[in-house]
Amino acid sequence: MREFLDQSFLLKTIAAEILYHEYAVEMPIIDYHCHLSAEDIATDRRFQNLTQAWLEGDHYKWRAMRMNGIEEQYCTGGATDQDKFDAWAKTVPYTIMNPLYHWTHLELLRYFEIKRILNPTTSQRIYQTGTELLQTSQYSCRGLLDQMNVHVVCTTNDPVENLCAHISMSKEQMGLTVVPGFRADRASQIMNPISWRRYMSDLGASAQLNIESPEGLLEALQKRHDFFAENGCMVSDHGEEQIFVEEYSSSDIQRIFDSTMAGHPPTFQETAIFKSWLLYELAKMDHAAGWTQQFHLSAMRNNNSRAPGPDTGYDSIGDFAIALGVSRFLDRLHKDGQLGRTILYSVNPAHNEVLASMCGNFCEHPIPGKIQFGTAWWFMDQIDGMERQITAFANMGLISRFVGMLTDSRSFLSFPRHEYFRRILCNMIGTQVHNGELPYDLPWLGKIIQDICYNNARDFFRFLIDSNSSESDQLMESKIATASSEPFQ
Amino acid sequence: MREFLDQSFLLKTIAAEILYHEYAVEMPIIDYHCHLSAEDIATDRRFQNLTQAWLEGDHYKWRAMRMNGIEEQYCTGGATDQDKFDAWAKTVPYTIMNPLYHWTHLELLRYFEIKRILNPTTSQRIYQTGTELLQTSQYSCRGLLDQMNVHVVCTTNDPVENLCAHISMSKEQMGLTVVPGFRADRASQIMNPISWRRYMSDLGASAQLNIESPEGLLEALQKRHDFFAENGCMVSDHGEEQIFVEEYSSSDIQRIFDSTMAGHPPTFQETAIFKSWLLYELAKMDHAAGWTQQFHLSAMRNNNSRAPGPDTGYDSIGDFAIALGVSRFLDRLHKDGQLGRTILYSVNPAHNEVLASMCGNFCEHPIPGKIQFGTAWWFMDQIDGMERQITAFANMGLISRFVGMLTDSRSFLSFPRHEYFRRILCNMIGTQVHNGELPYDLPWLGKIIQDICYNNARDFFRFLIDSNSSESDQLMESKIATASSEPFQ
Amino acid sequence: MREFLDQSFLLKTIAAEILYHEYAVEMPIIDYHCHLSAEDIATDRRFQNLTQAWLEGDHYKWRAMRMNGIEEQYCTGGATDQDKFDAWAKTVPYTIMNPLYHWTHLELLRYFEIKRILNPTTSQRIYQTGTELLQTSQYSCRGLLDQMNVHVVCTTNDPVENLCAHISMSKEQMGLTVVPGFRADRASQIMNPISWRRYMSDLGASAQLNIESPEGLLEALQKRHDFFAENGCMVSDHGEEQIFVEEYSSSDIQRIFDSTMAGHPPTFQETAIFKSWLLYELAKMDHAAGWTQQFHLSAMRNNNSRAPGPDTGYDSIGDFAIALGVSRFLDRLHKDGQLGRTILYSVNPAHNEVLASMCGNFCEHPIPGKIQFGTAWWFMDQIDGMERQITAFANMGLISRFVGMLTDSRSFLSFPRHEYFRRILCNMIGTQVHNGELPYDLPWLGKIIQDICYNNARDFFRFLIDSNSSESDQLMESKIATASSEPFQ
Repeated sequence: MREFLDQSFLLKTIAAEILYHEYAVEMPIIDYHCHLSAEDIATDRRFQNLTQAWLEGDHYKWRAMRMNGIEEQYCTGGATDQDKFDAWAKTVPYTIMNPLYHWTHLELLRYFEIKRILNPTTSQRIYQTGTELLQTSQYSCRGLLDQMNVHVVCTTNDPVENLCAHISMSKEQMGLTVVPGFRADRASQIMNPISWRRYMSDLGASAQLNIESPEGLLEALQKRHDFFAENGCMVSDHGEEQIFVEEYSSSDIQRIFDSTMAGHPPTFQETAIFKSWLLYELAKMDHAAGWTQQFHLSAMRNNNSRAPGPDTGYDSIGDFAIALGVSRFLDRLHKDGQLGRTILYSVNPAHNEVLASMCGNFCEHPIPGKIQFGTAWWFMDQIDGMERQITAFANMGLISRFVGMLTDSRSFLSFPRHEYFRRILCNMIGTQVHNGELPYDLPWLGKIIQDICYNNARDFFRFLIDSNSSESDQLMESKIATASSEPFQ
Repeated sequence: MREFLDQSFLLKTIAAEILYHEYAVEMPIIDYHCHLSAEDIATDRRFQNLTQAWLEGDHYKWRAMRMNGIEEQYCTGGATDQDKFDAWAKTVPYTIMNPLYHWTHLELLRYFEIKRILNPTTSQRIYQTGTELLQTSQYSCRGLLDQMNVHVVCTTNDPVENLCAHISMSKEQMGLTVVPGFRADRASQIMNPISWRRYMSDLGASAQLNIESPEGLLEALQKRHDFFAENGCMVSDHGEEQIFVEEYSSSDIQRIFDSTMAGHPPTFQETAIFKSWLLYELAKMDHAAGWTQQFHLSAMRNNNSRAPGPDTGYDSIGDFAIALGVSRFLDRLHKDGQLGRTILYSVNPAHNEVLASMCGNFCEHPIPGKIQFGTAWWFMDQIDGMERQITAFANMGLISRFVGMLTDSRSFLSFPRHEYFRRILCNMIGTQVHNGELPYDLPWLGKIIQDICYNNARDFFRFLIDSNSSESDQLMESKIATASSEPFQ
Repeated sequence: MREFLDQSFLLKTIAAEILYHEYAVEMPIIDYHCHLSAEDIATDRRFQNLTQAWLEGDHYKWRAMRMNGIEEQYCTGGATDQDKFDAWAKTVPYTIMNPLYHWTHLELLRYFEIKRILNPTTSQRIYQTGTELLQTSQYSCRGLLDQMNVHVVCTTNDPVENLCAHISMSKEQMGLTVVPGFRADRASQIMNPISWRRYMSDLGASAQLNIESPEGLLEALQKRHDFFAENGCMVSDHGEEQIFVEEYSSSDIQRIFDSTMAGHPPTFQETAIFKSWLLYELAKMDHAAGWTQQFHLSAMRNNNSRAPGPDTGYDSIGDFAIALGVSRFLDRLHKDGQLGRTILYSVNPAHNEVLASMCGNFCEHPIPGKIQFGTAWWFMDQIDGMERQITAFANMGLISRFVGMLTDSRSFLSFPRHEYFRRILCNMIGTQVHNGELPYDLPWLGKIIQDICYNNARDFFRFLIDSNSSESDQLMESKIATASSEPFQ
C-alpha cells in the first residue's frame, strides 16, 4: 500500500522511479501552448487570495461543481471568494478518479507544501495558508513559474492583439521566455456575419488597412503574422471541429466574402469552402515563417445556449469524421511544397489511431517528427487519456521524437500537469523495462525521456530561449548516452 | 494463483476486498431498468426447469450457441428443454473470456450453490439440481429476487399496457417495489406505416380516444403517461440509433402524420423530423412529471432478415455520429426550461467520451449528477466495458454521483450482474488506494461505493420504496463518513 | 526485473508461461493472408544480404525512418544496401514502444540468433552476420519458412496472375502448402477510368475473352475464380474503405460500365453502386466455391500524392462509418442464401466492437465461428492492438473459435509475429487463470490455445495441407482435453 501522492506517485516499478527521479525531474518546462495572461507575467501580478489564483477562469472546476449540484453563483457568479472556495472544497471529495482530484492535491503540495486533503473540514485552513503565501514574492506570477522551472511560456493570442506585454518582457533579462501564439480562428468564423464583420474591422485596424476583399483579409493577416514573428512567435493554433478541404476558385471566395460582409449568413457548404481557403492560406504563412501549426480538432463548443459565456465550461467532445479532411489538407500543402511542422490534436480519443497514423504520411527529411500527434488534450488530459495518446503515438509513430506536454491552462498553478505527464511517461517506459519489453539501459531511455520532456520541444519549435536558461541546456546535451551494445541475454 | 470465482473474485488488492466485503455487499439492489415480466412477479411464477428459468429469452446465450455452430432448434426452436440445456452446456467451455462464462458460473453459484464448471460432463447433474431447487419456494420469482436483496424492480412497458400486475402488487405488503417504465418507441416508428397505424389504434384504445392528428397522439401519450405516473412510474426509456433534432413546424408534423396514416412510407428526412418532434414532446412530459428520461443509443437492431423475430439475438453495435444530435436535443430542452433528469447510454464504446463529457454541459443546481452517462450496456456489460465506462465517466464527470448498475435483463437469474459490477467498481477504487492514487480512507470511499451501489439511485429516481426496505436505508445513512483531515504524508 | 526478450517475454504469470511453452509453441503456422512472393518460394530465392531480406518492401521501416528525419534515398531510393541498413540501425533506438522495436530484435534472435541491440554501434557486425547466414541453405526462402514451422502460406494474387509458381510447387513434395488468394480489387476501381479500362483488357486476356459488358466482366472473373480454385485457392480478399450496399438495377450497372469504358470518371454515387454490385457478385462466387471471403476495411490509402508509389508507406487509418454497410451487405447475401465464411477486419480500432458484435448476427449451424472478427491488422498489429481485438472478439463472440494470426507481410522474416501474437494470447488467458477469472485447467485452455494457433484455421479454411505436415495434425488432435468436472471451490 502506497501513501497518497508520495515520491513514487504513479511510478510502479523501480525502473520507472529511476527514470523519473534521475532524468525527468530536472528538465525545465517549455509550455508551448497555454492561455496564461502575458499581462499578468509582465506586471508580475500577485493574487489576492487562493480563489483568484486557483478558481478564476477554471472551467474544469466549475463543471465539477455544477455536476455536484452547486449553484452557479459559486462558479462564475457573484459569491465571495471565500464562499467560492468552500463550494469547491465541498466538491473535491466527490471528484475521486477525476484528474481534478490529483491536480488539486498535487498543486497544493507542490506550490504550497500543503499535505492535507481538501474538504469542508480543511477548507478554511487551506484557504488561509494559500492566501498568505500568495502575498509573498515567491508567489507572484513569475515566482510561481520560477518555482516550477518554466523556461518558456507560449501564450495564445488573437492577431489583433498588440503584444505590448510580450514586447516589454522581451527587453528584460528575466530567465524566462514569453512568446505569443497566433490564433486566427475568428477570421474564419463567418457563420455569424455580424460579429465577423466587426472582427474584420478590428483586424483591419490592427493592420492599418481596410479589409474589403479576400485579398485584403490575407494582407491584414500577413501583416499581423509578420508582426507576431518579429515578436518571437513561432506557432499558430487552430480550433476547428474538423478540417474542410473543399475545391474552390477565387471567385467563390470573393462571392462568399461579399455576401457575408453584406450580412447574409453563409450556408454550411459556403462556410466549408471559406475555411478550406483560409486555413490553406494561413498554413502557407506558417510554412514561410518556419512556424509550427497546431490543429486542435473535435471540440464541440458552446453546447448550452444559457451559458454565461464562452469558455465557462459548456464545451464537450464531438464525433465528426476527420480523417479524410486532415489527409487532403496536409496533402494539398505538401504537394505545393507548403507543409511545415504540424501538430494534430483531437479531444476525441476515438481519433487517436487516425491521427497517430496520419503523421507518418507526411514526415520527411530533415525534420525528425515533422508531423506530430499532439498530447492528450483538454478532457483527455488525465492518466487514461495520456496513456492512450502515448500508446497510439508510440505504436504508429516515434514517441522518442514527441514534443511532449503542454498545460493549455489559464492558471499559473497548473504546471504540475507537466509532472503528472512525466510520471506517466516514465511509468510506461519503466514498466516495459521491468517486464523485459525494453532493455535495461536507463541512460539511453533516460535521454529519450529528457528529449520528450524538453529537448524535442526546444529543437522543434526553436523559440529564442533566454541565455540564462540555455546554459543549462548545454549541460543537458552532454548527457547523451549511446545505447549499450552488450548482448542482452 | 487464485481459485476460480473465490471470495476475492475480481478484487486484486486488500483495499478492494475491504471495500467490497465491508461496504458494497450489504447494499440492496435497485434495478431501475430491466425487462422482467411483472406478471411473473405478481403471480410469483415458478419455473418448471432450469432451461425455462435460465435460457428462455436469453439472446446472449443463443448468439453464443449460434457462433458455436449449434442448430437453431436448440436456441429459439422446438428442441426439448433438456436438449436445449445440453446444447448450452456444450457451448459453455467455448465461451472463455466472454462475460457469459462468468455470469453462468456466478449464477449457478449464487442461486444454486453449484460449484462445478458447466460442460457436457456436468450438464445433466446441474440441470437436475437446478430444476429441483426451482420447485422450492425460495426459487419462485419473488424468492429469486429476495435471495439477491432486490428492493426495486423497474420493468419496461409500452404505453398501451394496462399495468394490472403492477397495480395488484402495489396493494401488497411485499418488501419489494415493482414499478413500470414508460417506453413509447413504437409511437415514433413511422418507417412502417402499417404497423404504426395499428399501434395508433391500440394506443388510442388504451387512452380511450381516436388518434387522428398529432395533437391526438400527444393527448393519448399524455393520458398514458399520467396513468403510468399514478402507478409508480418514474422513468421513461428510448431506444434510438441516434437522436434527431431537425427544425419543424406544426404543419410539417401534420403533413407527415397524415401521409403516414394514409399508408405512405415516410422519407428518412420525414422520419427524422417526426422523431425530433415526438422525442421533444415526450421529454416535456417527463420533465413535468419529474421522471428520469433514459436514452439507449447506437444499437443497430434486426440485422438479419431471416431472424425468427425481434430480440432473438440479431442486434449489434452501430457507428452513427451522435454528439451533435444529443447536444442540440438537450440544449433545446434546457433553453425551454424543460430538461429533467437524463441518462445517456451508448452501446458503442467509441462514444464513451462523447457522452461522458456531454453530461457536464447540462448539469445544474440543485440535482447532483442531473445528466448521467449510463452504465456499460448490453454488449458492453462486461469487465472491459464497465471499466471503460467508469473510467470515462470518472474522468469527465463525477463517478461519485453515478446511479450505477442495472441488469437490462429478461431473466430472474441475472442479478449477480450487480455483484459483478460492484466487484469491478471496488477493484478500481481499491487499486487506486493501493497505488497511492487515492488516500487510504476506506470509510469515506466505502460511502461513495454505497452511494453508487444504491443511495444515488434511490435519491435520483425517487421510487416509492416499500417501508420495510426503507427502514434499512435509514440505517445506511448513519454510516456517512467524513473524509479524514489528517495530513497524508 | 526481466531480461529483454527472455524465454518468458510477454508472459507475466506462470500459467501464461505453461500455456505458451507447453501448448502454443509447438503448433505449426498457417499464414492464411500474406504478400509473400510465390516466385521466391518456387525458386527458393536466396537473399544477397540482410537489407534485401529484411528492408526490401518494408513500408513499416520506411515510415519509421522518415519520421526520424532520414532521407528518402535510404528508404525507397538508390543508396547502397549497406547504407540503407545503417540508416535503419540509426533509427532503431528511436523506435522504442513501437512494434518495430520488438519485431526487429525478435527477428534477429529467432532467425539469426543475434542477441544484440541494433544501433549504429552494432550495425555493421549484425549486417555481416545476417548476410553471411543468408548465404547458407537454411536461409533460403524455404529454409526461412521451415525454421518457423510454416505449413501453409496463402499469398495475395490478382485474378490476372497465371499462378505458375503455385502450380509448379503443387507438384512438389515439399512439406509446405503454398496457395493463392484471390484479390480482385482492381476490377471495381472505376474511379480512374483509364487504368480500369487497361485492367479490363488484361483481365479479359487472362480469361480469353473480351470484356465489353458487366456480364463479360463477371464471366471473366468467374473463369479466373475457377482457375484459382483449381489451383488450391480457398480465400478471397477485399481492400475497401467501407462496404457499399446501394440499390441498383442491371441497367444502372450497364450504364455505369459503358460510361466508364468511354472514359468518363464516375460520380461517387456511381462508384458506390458499381461496387455494391460487384462485391455482391464476387461474394456469390466465393460462396459457391466454399471459399472464405475477407474484408480489410478502413485503410485510407495513398494519402501523399508525392509518394514514390503505392505500398511505400503512405497509407493510414480512416474513420468512415461502416456498420450499416457491412450489416446490409451480409444480410443481402444471407437472405439470398449466398453468405459463406467471412472475416471482417478494420484497421481502425474504434470499429472493434462494431465488427465483433456484427459477427454474431450471421453465424449459424453448422460452421463454428462462420463470421469472424479478423485479427489486429496493419497499424494495429501490436500489443495494444492485439489485446483490444482479442478482448472485443472474446467479449462479443467466441474467441475459442478464432482463426488467429496472419502476417500480412511481404517479408520472409516476419513470422515471429505469430510468436508475438501467441505470447500475447497466452498471457491474456494465463492472467485470467492466475487471477481466478478462469479455472486452473490448463489442458483444456491449452487445447483452446492450440485451436486458435492452428486447428481452427485448418478446419475453417480447409486448405489442402501437404501430407507430411498433416500427419502431425493427427497427433495434435489426440491432445483434446475434456474440461475438468471437479468442484472449483
